[in-house]
Amino acid sequence: MSFQDYFPIWNQLTAAQQNQMLGSLITRTVSKGTVLHNGSMDCTGLILIQSGQLRAYILSEEGREITIYRLFERDMCLFSASCMMRSIQFEVTIEAEKDTDLWVIPAELYKSIMEKSAPVANYTNELMATRFSEVMWLIEQIMWKSLDKRVAAFLLEESAIEQSSELKLTHETIANHLGSHREVITRMLRYFQNEGMVKLSRGSVRILDADRLAALQDA
Amino acid sequence: MSFQDYFPIWNQLTAAQQNQMLGSLITRTVSKGTVLHNGSMDCTGLILIQSGQLRAYILSEEGREITIYRLFERDMCLFSASCMMRSIQFEVTIEAEKDTDLWVIPAELYKSIMEKSAPVANYTNELMATRFSEVMWLIEQIMWKSLDKRVAAFLLEESAIEQSSELKLTHETIANHLGSHREVITRMLRYFQNEGMVKLSRGSVRILDADRLAALQDA
Repeated sequence: MSFQDYFPIWNQLTAAQQNQMLGSLITRTVSKGTVLHNGSMDCTGLILIQSGQLRAYILSEEGREITIYRLFERDMCLFSASCMMRSIQFEVTIEAEKDTDLWVIPAELYKSIMEKSAPVANYTNELMATRFSEVMWLIEQIMWKSLDKRVAAFLLEESAIEQSSELKLTHETIANHLGSHREVITRMLRYFQNEGMVKLSRGSVRILDADRLAALQDA
Repeated sequence: MSFQDYFPIWNQLTAAQQNQMLGSLITRTVSKGTVLHNGSMDCTGLILIQSGQLRAYILSEEGREITIYRLFERDMCLFSASCMMRSIQFEVTIEAEKDTDLWVIPAELYKSIMEKSAPVANYTNELMATRFSEVMWLIEQIMWKSLDKRVAAFLLEESAIEQSSELKLTHETIANHLGSHREVITRMLRYFQNEGMVKLSRGSVRILDADRLAALQDA
């Protein structure tokens, strides 16, 4: 499988644009934990994921984190090229959550194509709207949902991503995803354990009763 | 002043597109409190404000609200036409905060122009990025919310020192006092201004509502 198969609107580019893109494309393999982009770094470019998993998060001045969205195979990351649009006035950090194979499309090139191509501009619009929807969902979670529901939802989502009920996650990691504190998460997980919904051990959380977690999430 | 003067990329439309737009434009005057759009209503269309003020907010199931952003003269509202893009998967309510004169561009027409016009698609991208930035700023406030309190406290302290509600302060100065960035302070002060707590002018900040600043500081 090549870049052409992964880039969704390849067939809507002109031959010249296709050649430009192939000519300036960068192929990278990054290991888990690599920071691919952060607000203070240069404009990385658009990232298209061949395989693996990335996480986009924001950081507080005190170093607290909250996950904004995840990116999987075939997803494209726009905000690693935020210099491309002057109206993007926020900073995200992009980190590899798993070993990841990806392509980088230089921001300047993408921008120059987008300025002339209605299909590329409209595709970019849909990408941004998708991320916007995820962020609006997150605001609703933060504002209206209590933390027990958010932890339940997070564990079920992780279980779906990993296709396993045994999750290799520290309490610190869960806190960073949810913008909370480790102590708060530990207390919540112990409560879940007392209720028979999970089993805790060092560095992992085993889901024992997914149905009850789902009921809690939707309550 | 006519629609042509308010629509920022008027000169980048073809003559045919200009005629289509003028031919299907709706002019409306709404009084304060009017709900112009909510998630369950039909796709209203894009709103361009001639004069007045709108508020976009989300609602919880229990009826709690949070303001996502404000729209003022010459601002354009995209999410009142959310049917236009399939990736917009969230619902906002748009309400007139003041008596407002506005134009509505029907969503279907705008969409058909945007699909063919790179300038219109790119303009729409910038619009969405602007709103996205406002929402990301809001998340940071919600999650880490310390700076708003620090700015409020700083203004009240300065006011006590100077024994005046008119503070001769640049945003840069405030940023330097608080170990922050000028851009961040500017955004915060504009938020305070929108809320009616201060009035900004070149090189100065006038405190209009010290009680509300104090309440914010102590919240």
